[in-house]
Amino acid sequence: MSVGTIHGVGLGPGDPDLMSLRAHRLLTGAKHVAYFRKAGRTGQARAIIEGLLHPDVVEFAMEYPITTEVPLTDPQYNEILSRFYEDCAAHLRALATGGEDVVVLSEGDPFFYGSFMHLYTRLKDDVPVQVVPAVTGMSAAWTATGSPITWGDDVLTVLMGTLSAEQLTERMKTTDALVVMKIGRNIEKVCAALTAAGKYDDAWLIEYASMPGQTVRRLSEAAGQVTPYFSIIVVHGQGRRP
Amino acid sequence: MSVGTIHGVGLGPGDPDLMSLRAHRLLTGAKHVAYFRKAGRTGQARAIIEGLLHPDVVEFAMEYPITTEVPLTDPQYNEILSRFYEDCAAHLRALATGGEDVVVLSEGDPFFYGSFMHLYTRLKDDVPVQVVPAVTGMSAAWTATGSPITWGDDVLTVLMGTLSAEQLTERMKTTDALVVMKIGRNIEKVCAALTAAGKYDDAWLIEYASMPGQTVRRLSEAAGQVTPYFSIIVVHGQGRRP
Repeated sequence: MSVGTIHGVGLGPGDPDLMSLRAHRLLTGAKHVAYFRKAGRTGQARAIIEGLLHPDVVEFAMEYPITTEVPLTDPQYNEILSRFYEDCAAHLRALATGGEDVVVLSEGDPFFYGSFMHLYTRLKDDVPVQVVPAVTGMSAAWTATGSPITWGDDVLTVLMGTLSAEQLTERMKTTDALVVMKIGRNIEKVCAALTAAGKYDDAWLIEYASMPGQTVRRLSEAAGQVTPYFSIIVVHGQGRRP
Repeated sequence: MSVGTIHGVGLGPGDPDLMSLRAHRLLTGAKHVAYFRKAGRTGQARAIIEGLLHPDVVEFAMEYPITTEVPLTDPQYNEILSRFYEDCAAHLRALATGGEDVVVLSEGDPFFYGSFMHLYTRLKDDVPVQVVPAVTGMSAAWTATGSPITWGDDVLTVLMGTLSAEQLTERMKTTDALVVMKIGRNIEKVCAALTAAGKYDDAWLIEYASMPGQTVRRLSEAAGQVTPYFSIIVVHGQGRRP
């Protein structure tokens, strides 16, 4: 019996029509599909592919033991998550060594801030793992603004809203084009940093890029409103353009 | 008669299997397809979709009047290219106002350092233009290295090799994860900047990511060899990972 392959499949930003041909083929032909989700929810990745799976597919929902109850800085956070990823990886490893191929869903691009990476590093030395890159959420976000993100020699910086106010400000100041992700409860800090860096008025807020509820507006027009996790802030580069 | 739509369609990094379902559907159904290329060449974008077009498709090859004969700093460079983009846009505008839909091919993601942007800005106020985001060349490059590019709060910086040595060094020093594109004849300057920033030994060189001739090796192993234009340098972030 041959060993199966774990496929880390990027689904893209949310619109199933932006999935790659390879991702679509792997998904529709899958016998085993695994995905992360918050306990009790459908999960964003699973929602994207609704209607695409074979009726006899075996689903493995990997439910996060914590989300925001334990702060990132608490050593417990890493311990709990590490054990969770180990358990998930063990299940997938057993499937693969038993000869089964498994498709693991990944929102966006698996190697770009994706949760699949935590399984990948735990599996790659034991069983074959293949990764399918995908359209990132940030590509969908800047496309939705109707303006190119980078021109000529523009420098693009991608920042997480979880960074400190000082780090955010300093890096925002020195870049041409900017993307900020993981905004959620960091929105006020991010807005203050953009203001300090002189970029607040040029910032755009994209919510649910490429998804049914997509909104695109200037960040200044969204001021004071709490934004969900699926929010991306974009400041366009203004580089050379013939 | 209704006005046609110009579709700026991202083809992704090169492997046709990484094209989106939407891109594939637009391409295979297209009556008019336009693409940039160097005079006398097939062109990379056109090569990617070989075999996918309808036999009766009308092709419009937009051949660059210059490539590297005139330096970027020469005012002539912008003038010549600007006139070229105007001419191309006029042709596409005429097709659209005549009721024809046109698919304009774009390597990678159209709004991320893509040539399509120069047509987009000239057309968007006159005729309907739709942009299809795609997998970037850099996603294919970091996927090919077999290591995730960003973890946790990692900062990602994307730099063009055309920047000055000082700018390159300064920005390389202060980022966690790094992507360098437009390398070509800038390879020595880029290597020197990576060395000055203390990142040379951690840098990977990916040539023809996701394409038949793909190579992946440490930059230090490629030293002294001239790299082609389809090269991307990657330094992986080392952020938090449970």
